[in-house]
Amino acid sequence: MAESSKTAPLRIALAGLGTVGAGVIRLIEANAALIARRAGRPIQITAVSARDRGKDRGVDMTRYVWEDDMIILGEREDVDVVVELVGGSDGPALACARTTIEAGKALVTANKAMIAHHGLKLAEMAEAAKVALKFEAAVAGGIPVIKGLREGAAANEIERVYGILNGTCNYILSTMEDTGRSFADVLAEAQAKGFAEADPAFDVEGTDAAHKLSILAAIAYGTRIDFASVETAGITRIRAADIAQADALGYVIRLIGMAEEDRSGETPRLFQRVQPHLVPFDHPLAHVDGATNAVVAEGNYSGRLLFQGAGAGDGPTASAVVADLIDIARGDIGAPFSVPVSELEALAPASSGHRLGRTYIRFTVADRPGVLAEIAAAMRDAGVSIESLIQKGRAEAEGEVLLAIVTHEGPESAVTEALRLLEGSASLTAAPLVMQILGE
Amino acid sequence: MAESSKTAPLRIALAGLGTVGAGVIRLIEANAALIARRAGRPIQITAVSARDRGKDRGVDMTRYVWEDDMIILGEREDVDVVVELVGGSDGPALACARTTIEAGKALVTANKAMIAHHGLKLAEMAEAAKVALKFEAAVAGGIPVIKGLREGAAANEIERVYGILNGTCNYILSTMEDTGRSFADVLAEAQAKGFAEADPAFDVEGTDAAHKLSILAAIAYGTRIDFASVETAGITRIRAADIAQADALGYVIRLIGMAEEDRSGETPRLFQRVQPHLVPFDHPLAHVDGATNAVVAEGNYSGRLLFQGAGAGDGPTASAVVADLIDIARGDIGAPFSVPVSELEALAPASSGHRLGRTYIRFTVADRPGVLAEIAAAMRDAGVSIESLIQKGRAEAEGEVLLAIVTHEGPESAVTEALRLLEGSASLTAAPLVMQILGE
Repeated sequence: MAESSKTAPLRIALAGLGTVGAGVIRLIEANAALIARRAGRPIQITAVSARDRGKDRGVDMTRYVWEDDMIILGEREDVDVVVELVGGSDGPALACARTTIEAGKALVTANKAMIAHHGLKLAEMAEAAKVALKFEAAVAGGIPVIKGLREGAAANEIERVYGILNGTCNYILSTMEDTGRSFADVLAEAQAKGFAEADPAFDVEGTDAAHKLSILAAIAYGTRIDFASVETAGITRIRAADIAQADALGYVIRLIGMAEEDRSGETPRLFQRVQPHLVPFDHPLAHVDGATNAVVAEGNYSGRLLFQGAGAGDGPTASAVVADLIDIARGDIGAPFSVPVSELEALAPASSGHRLGRTYIRFTVADRPGVLAEIAAAMRDAGVSIESLIQKGRAEAEGEVLLAIVTHEGPESAVTEALRLLEGSASLTAAPLVMQILGE
Repeated sequence: MAESSKTAPLRIALAGLGTVGAGVIRLIEANAALIARRAGRPIQITAVSARDRGKDRGVDMTRYVWEDDMIILGEREDVDVVVELVGGSDGPALACARTTIEAGKALVTANKAMIAHHGLKLAEMAEAAKVALKFEAAVAGGIPVIKGLREGAAANEIERVYGILNGTCNYILSTMEDTGRSFADVLAEAQAKGFAEADPAFDVEGTDAAHKLSILAAIAYGTRIDFASVETAGITRIRAADIAQADALGYVIRLIGMAEEDRSGETPRLFQRVQPHLVPFDHPLAHVDGATNAVVAEGNYSGRLLFQGAGAGDGPTASAVVADLIDIARGDIGAPFSVPVSELEALAPASSGHRLGRTYIRFTVADRPGVLAEIAAAMRDAGVSIESLIQKGRAEAEGEVLLAIVTHEGPESAVTEALRLLEGSASLTAAPLVMQILGE
């Protein structure tokens, strides 16, 4: 980099002017002086682009060049970095990202879906072009967890990385916990308040958390992103009764994304799962309420590191976007995934079967004699050892009873086998709900 | 930097081979392959130095050059970075740091006392020599909080930075909480277990936390380190009764270091204080137990960020030291305090008087009539509004009663004034203990 380019303003273009885009503009304007001081040079917005030019975004856009076509932002001579805030794994976002890097410009994005699906290809392009590709805002909003893993914990073999990666789910679960209300009820309220999307599937089915987990796993383990292999379960089937049950046992329920390397076989495999977990009251994640996110990285020397903060919102997301810009202004164009893409390992996915743990299984059963014996026999035949069994009166629906089992520590494969034995049983009125108990 | 120097091994020398030094050697050896992958080049130990060559440190030193004089490590042609782990604000550590930077070599240190006292001068020298000076391990052990503030939160004006910065104090306080035992009793146990030094004053009087706070404040606010102005109170006067009282009111007691810019006057001032606080049960810091450290940074866009982990120990400290080395290997030689020393502001210290807050005041009083009236009158005359008053039976000592007051929100100066009015009163058998209640 020439000496002059180290002190000249870093000129950026924004693609996408939703709430986060407007937040980035507000932040860059409000904190301009301190950003310039810390970055060593000013960060200036040159050009902007979005679908609808006429929309009132609450910030003055007239001082920036407007481009109708965001694809060509990176080709402008007065642009050093394009900030992509359009969203969506493909379409205009991806086209914009590609043309930017092809034009030899840096790319900063908050787009977890695009990075989960196309991050490796984009990183390869960026490495070849010797430009930065940064995506701190794509995982856990304003929390600098990509940096925490990529740099802060860089000396460590990561034994386990896990966390609360979706603020909408955490808001719903902690509100159910506080109020005793049902999932559907709390979701509807969250939608009314704007905390949940009109189509909430992406959040409540776990897909969004899975996108983020696949990115974290790649950085933590130096592996190729493998979003398709993330075992994913959402929170839609959790009932108020499950939360009450968990509480009585000393747990809260949280949607946890977790990745670890499985070195039990001949070749290492990568385990990635998003699933509701029972989290013991004394675990730091049990105190993460509302839309907050938190990520735990367990390093072989650092021990347990916790990063916590706002997982979404225009301010926090803008904070992460501009942190990336400051890094670029300071000259950091290191490998997006910590090591060059060519050196990332392609690990086969590990099934959950090999894992040891304690499991919470909630059955919805018919209210008639013999049901308990049938379930107990299946557990016995599969070698599942039961630590406690809770049956509390009738459930909401007529003739339906809820029955919860907590197992002793044992292989998850045994639980899977027990449930297979019970498949098709007339005693079960719905598929059982399975949640792992988060272990130390 | 020449292209070859970006792929050649980064050659380091270790000054000081205590538990942390041995930990750094173990970590660099055990994780050598992944460190080389992430750093883009190997990190190799070339030379070592310590006071006692003969001591068994549990690691093989024979493959490294031994230097009797650590001062000259940085002058060796086969050394790029010196890691100073000797400790002490002056003496050999400082001499080693100076000669290293004067020789044009990078310095990594875990020495909070040296950075608190001489960090600005060393940073000036490093900036002039265009070499790195890094000290992640000096604050909060293995937690990447210097990086979190300097880079992760770089886009933000920091409204408040505070945290649990001394593991020994936190271990003592949380053990007193769990067991109901006295300070002296728990301290003696901690000393026997090796969790506290034979001379514990440095930890329990708050000095160590004040060193760390002064470093955090400089980075958060872009100000010159001002360790001398940190208002410091330790934990030695906290009794089991205070902890029980706090618990009954919904709080735990934690030693908190806090810094904020006071912009209430014509010129900004810097407020820095280490003091035991009452922390509400629902605050994340209330769940930080044992020797764990945690730092909260509240940014004007990021919102509240929490960084938590092991605050000491050879593994975590080595993790932070090697993270710094990896940054250096990657080419990061940015300003040690985020902005060049010449641009750091010299802010006058802010007194605590301007601050608004709620305060816990515990009096030790003589067991006779009229005492309560005297205290209540002093509070009234100073304009302190009392939220609750707790008097529970007799205290440990004969004829002595403990009386605790929690104030409504008001200026801290009013509390100071009330205590001034009570100074010399025969009713008080000891100086009152004052703790702030941590606000939202």
